[in-house]
Amino acid sequence: MNYPSGIKKSTSGKKTTTIDSNLSHKNRGMTLEAELNDSNEYYREINQAFIYKKPTPIKIVKVDYPSRDKATIKEAYFTVPSTTDYNGLYKGKYIDFEAKETKSKTSFTLNNIHPHQINHLKNINEHGGIAFLIVRFTTLNETYLLFAKDFLDYIEDTNKKSIPIDYFREKAHLIKDGYRPRVDYLKIINDLLEVK
Amino acid sequence: MNYPSGIKKSTSGKKTTTIDSNLSHKNRGMTLEAELNDSNEYYREINQAFIYKKPTPIKIVKVDYPSRDKATIKEAYFTVPSTTDYNGLYKGKYIDFEAKETKSKTSFTLNNIHPHQINHLKNINEHGGIAFLIVRFTTLNETYLLFAKDFLDYIEDTNKKSIPIDYFREKAHLIKDGYRPRVDYLKIINDLLEVK
Repeated sequence: MNYPSGIKKSTSGKKTTTIDSNLSHKNRGMTLEAELNDSNEYYREINQAFIYKKPTPIKIVKVDYPSRDKATIKEAYFTVPSTTDYNGLYKGKYIDFEAKETKSKTSFTLNNIHPHQINHLKNINEHGGIAFLIVRFTTLNETYLLFAKDFLDYIEDTNKKSIPIDYFREKAHLIKDGYRPRVDYLKIINDLLEVK
Repeated sequence: MNYPSGIKKSTSGKKTTTIDSNLSHKNRGMTLEAELNDSNEYYREINQAFIYKKPTPIKIVKVDYPSRDKATIKEAYFTVPSTTDYNGLYKGKYIDFEAKETKSKTSFTLNNIHPHQINHLKNINEHGGIAFLIVRFTTLNETYLLFAKDFLDYIEDTNKKSIPIDYFREKAHLIKDGYRPRVDYLKIINDLLEVK
């Protein structure tokens, strides 16, 4: 499978890398991210949903002002996000999710998700939002939508370190690859809303 | 009135400024921003609403990797936001707003709001979200919540350059100063939801 919209960071051997987009500091999840951004753009184009990736949170330390209206950030650091990466509006509903890729064929490691992101998903779920994870097992080429409720049920009251692929196959919803949108996760949300 | 949580950027005479928070590149709106962040934190503490300011959108150009897990952004630029600054969830409703301060005593200049932010507010309003502006007239010490519908009604079909204070006094909702939350804008949203 090709990922035409995937963005790759070249880091090999160099200490300074020039990149041309709002990249996360880890390679993890970049391709899924690009496909989700493209899908969200498509949903906006057809006036279906207004869901955006939040900008990468950054702590700015030093800014140069070479001229009155121009500012160049000269020193900044990536910071841990307080919330999930994506949120927005679909059919009057608040949508909120985190997206991750894993190369594992057997499980999704939970240290991919920060504790306050877990807490955030819990809050959103309890207050009437639609919260979920999108997890892509890249080696298997399987992408799942796992609702926050099922995610939280699994990790609750245990010291689980990962979620096995079988749990995804049983409880999560497989998202089929498409052309546009590439990752049609709203189809699953739509089915959920129609059942309600 | 004092703004204990206000953050000020020191720019006088220096070309390089060191700042310790996620600041916008313009001084406009900082104090209101700090008060809103504080209010949103309070709403989260009492488990009432989960509304966050989005990180400042930045285009990253150069990143140094002094060690494997450490990344320093060495060159980046502030970019124009595609959406409003704040969004989140309250009582199952999608909340979305932009916040601005003005020193003017007479009007709010529309070039404070980017065209795609206006478009975004329109989309959110049409798709069942609760969209609005919070505008503080700092000199008058008056802070208003103006629903997107009333905002869009005013600017529609004209080439208006600003919204006079009288329009706010007539159509918008005055937000009283408080201790915690400092800017209790959800009170107005709550009144709206109870009427519905």
